[in-house]
Amino acid sequence: MNDTLSMVLCSGTDDRLEAAAILIGGAAAIGRPVNVLLQFWALDAFRASGIDADHGLAADARSAAADVVRRRAPAGRLPWAETLRQAKELGEVRIRACSNSMELLGADRTDLDPLVDDVCGVASFLIDAGDGQIVFV
Amino acid sequence: MNDTLSMVLCSGTDDRLEAAAILIGGAAAIGRPVNVLLQFWALDAFRASGIDADHGLAADARSAAADVVRRRAPAGRLPWAETLRQAKELGEVRIRACSNSMELLGADRTDLDPLVDDVCGVASFLIDAGDGQIVFV
Amino acid sequence: MNDTLSMVLCSGTDDRLEAAAILIGGAAAIGRPVNVLLQFWALDAFRASGIDADHGLAADARSAAADVVRRRAPAGRLPWAETLRQAKELGEVRIRACSNSMELLGADRTDLDPLVDDVCGVASFLIDAGDGQIVFV
Repeated sequence: MNDTLSMVLCSGTDDRLEAAAILIGGAAAIGRPVNVLLQFWALDAFRASGIDADHGLAADARSAAADVVRRRAPAGRLPWAETLRQAKELGEVRIRACSNSMELLGADRTDLDPLVDDVCGVASFLIDAGDGQIVFV
Repeated sequence: MNDTLSMVLCSGTDDRLEAAAILIGGAAAIGRPVNVLLQFWALDAFRASGIDADHGLAADARSAAADVVRRRAPAGRLPWAETLRQAKELGEVRIRACSNSMELLGADRTDLDPLVDDVCGVASFLIDAGDGQIVFV
Repeated sequence: MNDTLSMVLCSGTDDRLEAAAILIGGAAAIGRPVNVLLQFWALDAFRASGIDADHGLAADARSAAADVVRRRAPAGRLPWAETLRQAKELGEVRIRACSNSMELLGADRTDLDPLVDDVCGVASFLIDAGDGQIVFV
């Protein structure tokens, strides 16, 4: 059994990134390797210049629920970047930027937060995923 | 082979919940166990007080298509809650609330519709998923 | 090992369809069969009358990032339909419309672009997916 959990992150809002970070943290906690590919707005959220900024919540949040989440989150912000930093300390978590999205966003390797380990293409990511689980967020 | 279909529901709009419910109903119909984890806005949609309310459609629906869907859906509302009730009668479908999201949303077990079986953490969910499929909606 | 990559496409914006097309192209490039099911707004985007139109970007794109993507995309539009045409030439890619969504959208087989191979139900799709990977976009 290939127990690597592969995740493609595409959404760039704090709630989706938090949902992904919680899954990644849970996987790391039970000793599973995690392999993340950042695309589009998720990749954009990992720019060093803005990773700790507010990235908003998905449009599908009812405003009452969104208000509760903002009020209850520590410092009013979902702490996905910090959750990911802890997950990387805890287990084997590799975060890679999709080369295609890098080009589309005009991003350079040096623009990205140190949470990002390297850049790779989709084919490499799929080969690494092998027959393990792939989750798209 | 682990034939359980594990699904993480995060979106709270009626179209995404309907897409998930249709997959769950299809899996139940072919005899596959389904294990659902509710996070964020999906969890919020399962509050007993609002489960049969209108939860809107995703922002990515073209307005012409959204109008057609609303007009053709029975009683103008996508019947995902009813589809899930039927799927639970038909097969082995377990719906669990993510403990982390419960806390963020300030929700209590008693706030949730009876469709929700229990509350669990992400690590438990992943352990139950084992090497079966995991789908994030 | 079942190496078919099964994908459920639900989102109808150009960025999500592009993210899916890139994964599909990558899978085809490494010789993996791909089995796609179109639901809701993704299905709507495959109408022959509008497949090459602008389907917008997800609401979660920061406007600065969205502007960059639009400027850098060839002809200002993410070329997912063309990427899919190439993937179908390169490998075994089957694109199917979900019968349930066809009904909801009031769509007829003849309304769809030739990229769509046929119409099927969710249960058939899941049976074809077997124990291979399933990704929901």
